[in-house]
Amino acid sequence: MSDRRLEGPVRIVGAGLLGASIGLALRERGVDVILDDVSPSALDLAIDYGAGRPAADGDLPALVVVCVPPDVVARVVAAELAAHPIALVTDVASVKVAPLEQLRALGVDLSRYIGSHPMAGRERSGAISARADLFIGRPWVIAGHDAISYGRAAQVEQLALDLGAIPMEMTAGEHDRNVALVSHTPQVVASLLARRLSGATDSAVALAGQGLRDTTRIASSEPELWVQILGANAEPVAEILAAFRDDLDAMIAALQQPTAPGARRAIAESLAGGNAGVARIPGKHGQASHFSQIVVKVDDTPGELARLLTDIGEAGVNMEDLRLEHSPGAQIGLAEISVLPEVEERLVSELSARGWKIAGAFA
Amino acid sequence: MSDRRLEGPVRIVGAGLLGASIGLALRERGVDVILDDVSPSALDLAIDYGAGRPAADGDLPALVVVCVPPDVVARVVAAELAAHPIALVTDVASVKVAPLEQLRALGVDLSRYIGSHPMAGRERSGAISARADLFIGRPWVIAGHDAISYGRAAQVEQLALDLGAIPMEMTAGEHDRNVALVSHTPQVVASLLARRLSGATDSAVALAGQGLRDTTRIASSEPELWVQILGANAEPVAEILAAFRDDLDAMIAALQQPTAPGARRAIAESLAGGNAGVARIPGKHGQASHFSQIVVKVDDTPGELARLLTDIGEAGVNMEDLRLEHSPGAQIGLAEISVLPEVEERLVSELSARGWKIAGAFA
Repeated sequence: MSDRRLEGPVRIVGAGLLGASIGLALRERGVDVILDDVSPSALDLAIDYGAGRPAADGDLPALVVVCVPPDVVARVVAAELAAHPIALVTDVASVKVAPLEQLRALGVDLSRYIGSHPMAGRERSGAISARADLFIGRPWVIAGHDAISYGRAAQVEQLALDLGAIPMEMTAGEHDRNVALVSHTPQVVASLLARRLSGATDSAVALAGQGLRDTTRIASSEPELWVQILGANAEPVAEILAAFRDDLDAMIAALQQPTAPGARRAIAESLAGGNAGVARIPGKHGQASHFSQIVVKVDDTPGELARLLTDIGEAGVNMEDLRLEHSPGAQIGLAEISVLPEVEERLVSELSARGWKIAGAFA
Repeated sequence: MSDRRLEGPVRIVGAGLLGASIGLALRERGVDVILDDVSPSALDLAIDYGAGRPAADGDLPALVVVCVPPDVVARVVAAELAAHPIALVTDVASVKVAPLEQLRALGVDLSRYIGSHPMAGRERSGAISARADLFIGRPWVIAGHDAISYGRAAQVEQLALDLGAIPMEMTAGEHDRNVALVSHTPQVVASLLARRLSGATDSAVALAGQGLRDTTRIASSEPELWVQILGANAEPVAEILAAFRDDLDAMIAALQQPTAPGARRAIAESLAGGNAGVARIPGKHGQASHFSQIVVKVDDTPGELARLLTDIGEAGVNMEDLRLEHSPGAQIGLAEISVLPEVEERLVSELSARGWKIAGAFA
């Protein structure tokens, strides 16, 4: 890891969610940020939000960050390399092989280009949704290639570090296969699952619970952007979906003849395979056993949750996570508090002593 | 809706998550609860948790609630009808057609049986995970049939109301088709998607984000229970999965030839269909436009979130929902606060005045 600091100005091309968020984060660190966008109104909006300033004659950016949709990444990167002959150019697109191949085909000098991909985003888009802390604690892939020097690559790594992200080096091909599995395939599956609800009766959707909401949440993503992402990473996604379809075919066959020999076993193996797969996901939400959960009843009135959290703070306990369950129309909510297992018992007794109703506590 | 109150004792057969939760909730209301379970240790555990008492000679339950796995529901219901000749018997299984048909085949008197299904659950199972407020604000399906009187059915409706749930009447067939769509199909899809992660490299799962976590969370459910649920509702689930597979085939074909005429359009239509489907889900999480979201930076130290919520309460604003984003290892979290759109602007200015850093605000 390099300890060099970014020396501005940094030029950001594309003032959407990612471009404006990078701009906001760099501005917070006092970096001079030049913003550009093909849409004058998008540019004005991002400047109004404080994400940077317009370009001026004589600007000599040290770093150019291209934050445009995947379809136009290579063209914009090539133009930026030509326009700023001393700058390092990176992009933040969700696919890395296609832009690199297109740049090679265009014959550009790759010694000043390195692709990257911050694993951060939202269902919402545009500068209006930008946040300076969008990247904090998120992986930021640096997709190296033979023509780039370590020193150059370290500059992009420093950008990621400056924005609070965790740089991860991998090849463009590795990146694309990885995101096909953990991002692009889930997007397709969620969209196709949600699509089944289009013709649903009111009586069916009235029964919707948290499981359906969670499995379909990302299906509200922008089709325009995802058509480009999927189009640019089609082969790895198609491969994973084909394997998924084989499992699906086996499941459908078993359900069509549920009393046939082996049917129950086939269903059980699919479900157990899902258990094994979800256990592979790291992080607190993937490893439920890492923290203890305490569930507390909270009245739906202003200040009640604050009072609970104040009591937790006064007990000297650091909350690792908090999840609210709150049904529409209900006058009561449940706060599920994650804490280190060793403090669970003490917190339960302290909260009970302060009159809180504990609905449950789980290791 | 009847205004009669439950007159105990209520007998609960099956002391797992649902049985013990119903027991806890009824005990809170002062109802005499008799618990039974084929497993003496499960029964002892639930009694230790305060979910009820053991059966005694001379017990005359008015209501029996059968909370056993789908495969044995009909057998247990039949036995309870025979053993308690004046009691109304209901069950809470996730499927309703198969138990009813099995009871008909057994020739039992259906005038004292009505199936029901509280749409509440957790990934965790057993009395150890039971909560008295598991049912608050949740739909509770009452699956009527010709042989039951309105008066009898109203008793189960009253049970649902007493536990804070929202009774919804529908036929067993409607119920099974509805849950096939909103619960059973999402379970299968999440399991099959998670299964793709079984052989994932560390470098792939290191890139996992909230989208993957949400889409696969329910894949950690118990295979033993779900084999029974899916087996008992196989036909409606297989039908929906077959339609899902048709969409999947079209998507795979488009991705295998992403530059062929019509490929991009096919992908876009699938994604747009997902947008339309997810918009059908009611409730605050489904209708993001219903509330405004304000995102505030919160240091990861005890008491900080409490201080934020106190400030919100002092501004006189009622928070509709709260979501924490908190990356492992990060020293900062983001609190996403949902409020009525008309108070958004005022809250942003009040919080800013109190020194809070607003990372974003969205309609």
